[in-house]
Amino acid sequence: MSQINIEHLLSRAGRSMKKSSIREILKLTQKPDMISFAGGLPSPESFPVEDLKEIVLEVLERDGPAALQYGTTEGDNRLRQLLVDKHNREGLNITTENLIINTGSQQALDLIGKVLIDPGDHVICGLPSYLGGINAFSVYGANLRGVPFDDHGMIPAELEKAITQIRELGRNVKFIYIIPDFQNPAGLTVPESRRIAILELADKYNLLVVEDSPYRDIRFSGEPQRLMYELDTSGRVLTLFTFSKIFAPGFRLAWTIGQPEMLDKLIMAKQSSDLCTPVFVQKIAARYLEKGLLEKNLVKTIALYRERCHHMIDCLRSFMPEGVRWTEPEGGLFLFITIPEHLNARDILTAAIERNVAFVTGSEFYCDNTGKNTMRLNFSFCNKKEIEKGIRELSAVIEEAIKAKG
Amino acid sequence: MSQINIEHLLSRAGRSMKKSSIREILKLTQKPDMISFAGGLPSPESFPVEDLKEIVLEVLERDGPAALQYGTTEGDNRLRQLLVDKHNREGLNITTENLIINTGSQQALDLIGKVLIDPGDHVICGLPSYLGGINAFSVYGANLRGVPFDDHGMIPAELEKAITQIRELGRNVKFIYIIPDFQNPAGLTVPESRRIAILELADKYNLLVVEDSPYRDIRFSGEPQRLMYELDTSGRVLTLFTFSKIFAPGFRLAWTIGQPEMLDKLIMAKQSSDLCTPVFVQKIAARYLEKGLLEKNLVKTIALYRERCHHMIDCLRSFMPEGVRWTEPEGGLFLFITIPEHLNARDILTAAIERNVAFVTGSEFYCDNTGKNTMRLNFSFCNKKEIEKGIRELSAVIEEAIKAKG
Repeated sequence: MSQINIEHLLSRAGRSMKKSSIREILKLTQKPDMISFAGGLPSPESFPVEDLKEIVLEVLERDGPAALQYGTTEGDNRLRQLLVDKHNREGLNITTENLIINTGSQQALDLIGKVLIDPGDHVICGLPSYLGGINAFSVYGANLRGVPFDDHGMIPAELEKAITQIRELGRNVKFIYIIPDFQNPAGLTVPESRRIAILELADKYNLLVVEDSPYRDIRFSGEPQRLMYELDTSGRVLTLFTFSKIFAPGFRLAWTIGQPEMLDKLIMAKQSSDLCTPVFVQKIAARYLEKGLLEKNLVKTIALYRERCHHMIDCLRSFMPEGVRWTEPEGGLFLFITIPEHLNARDILTAAIERNVAFVTGSEFYCDNTGKNTMRLNFSFCNKKEIEKGIRELSAVIEEAIKAKG
Repeated sequence: MSQINIEHLLSRAGRSMKKSSIREILKLTQKPDMISFAGGLPSPESFPVEDLKEIVLEVLERDGPAALQYGTTEGDNRLRQLLVDKHNREGLNITTENLIINTGSQQALDLIGKVLIDPGDHVICGLPSYLGGINAFSVYGANLRGVPFDDHGMIPAELEKAITQIRELGRNVKFIYIIPDFQNPAGLTVPESRRIAILELADKYNLLVVEDSPYRDIRFSGEPQRLMYELDTSGRVLTLFTFSKIFAPGFRLAWTIGQPEMLDKLIMAKQSSDLCTPVFVQKIAARYLEKGLLEKNLVKTIALYRERCHHMIDCLRSFMPEGVRWTEPEGGLFLFITIPEHLNARDILTAAIERNVAFVTGSEFYCDNTGKNTMRLNFSFCNKKEIEKGIRELSAVIEEAIKAKG
């Protein structure tokens, strides 16, 4: 069949879309023997396969026709109530009017882009920041403005400078995109005092705050910091949660909390995006929560990731050459490595893949194309033996690069 | 918590979004004793609950960790291959390069809007046409231009007139949106000769064709007409299919076939929309196809809907007053009623709801706000007794309106 040229039919967004380079790297890492620290995959050991066999039968038995039918756009009421109860036990004071279900957090990011961003609007994010967020907002024509981090996340003075500079250009800043707990990719957690400082700036300049919190329940050391949603006094925070890291990413199940007026807009956008999230998996998740299995399974998952994270850090200490630094996260799935400034992590990646080790170059997460000498490592997916072997190889590659350029 | 005003932070799309009036009507129809012809719900009797109990256990047993993990954006390879095989058995000649999985057809409509439509671009659709399509394209700022129907669908001369008028205004027409089989809402099927005539115009003016085909497998009389995808000789057709009407809408599982270059763009758009469709339900659907249960279940579903459709038509013949016409579909879920021109279907709906009967006013499906004297009736959801009672009441309401205005 002759292939027509579609270029002239594409939208601005359609023309500008590029394949995710992370996804291209992940394809490379499919080959056997590859030790991949590249993805953001939970460990399959954390999946409650046996519990699920019981739950899926219960759902089909008790609620089969409803579980297989269309559902409401805002989500299954029982699941929403169970999630509200979970948050309220943890210190919030919300109702189901404050909570909607999404088809993965990625959908929430997309819907937020859809209802808030016009081409040319600015969005503020961290340097670095989650690529999936950056991409979702870019599709709608957002200009991403990165704010540098210190050890506690976005530096307030830099944040204020960014906002005022954009305003001086006569452009809109719509919201601040922030991942306060065990940030992807940097692995750092924003303390409460810093969260409050950022919220004060959001108040001062009347911006929304999009708090993306996929890893919050996976804390293996330190003290929980209150959600920005909880610290907020003016109703300007939307917070995104997901079952992908604490239950099963294959369910694509997430939820968003926020003020009803804002959620109404997201619900309307979701109607034309997918009508509703799969009802069957929502009913499964509701039953999982009802049976108290989330907490039970989290204990196992946290212990597993703590062990793997600490093991990775031990290996980094043992094998990495001088001049290499890394973050030591209190939870989550990632740590972040900084190599000497004159090195480029892309060269390291090329050499590492030859030795069957993969990671994601940190520059992918910098919307200003800096961060050339940084690397994101996932510690949830590989077992301890693979972690040791992978870090040993990676350390050798970096050591050689330092010597070659030294 | 004080509520901030979000109006100034919304995008053009966010400001323009309205709640779906169909969804608002559907809420009214939740009350007990309501006979609702309003929704587009499959009959729960068509859901293979018992088969599913076996399948979900098989999936968890054989493929548990993979079914619960993230998957590729384009979809599960096994499911894609099984769907390709199905299409090729039915006369197509495609490979998995021509097929991607979506989270419901609604997602495919959304992604098509995203990669093709810039604000002000024109999209051509039928008068009437599926509201979910119209809404998905409108979100991206499309101008919908409706083309009138005769008994065989879009009238080619009217289609060409619409295209040339838009071009004379210096605007782009991006694609023709068409539902050739058992159209929603009109219940009519476009014959092959008309499909070819429309494709010739798409060739002449170099447009894409979006062929939405959710009901194709539910044919209970007449002869299948070849897909526009099959009749197309220049690779300009994207065709949307779904499991929602032939398996379970609660899985939100659909697929799109098209040329690889176009699908690549949809895949990139899907990456930022939801990363991937729930893998668990994809594996369930693959197993369902492998076991030949789709065909087995379709036989039952078709027999059920044939019986209900014919019963509704019998009731219309028995009870409707003079001057009321309806389509007699060869398949699908809907038929379409035209009442005398001086009546407004909204008044009929108000009176009908008081008598516990609901439907959707046809004007919802007319992008030019015409069709005031039309009504869409679903025949898949209610049983025969309800159909009889509902049509009897509805006929009485219409008869009274005719007398009152006569």
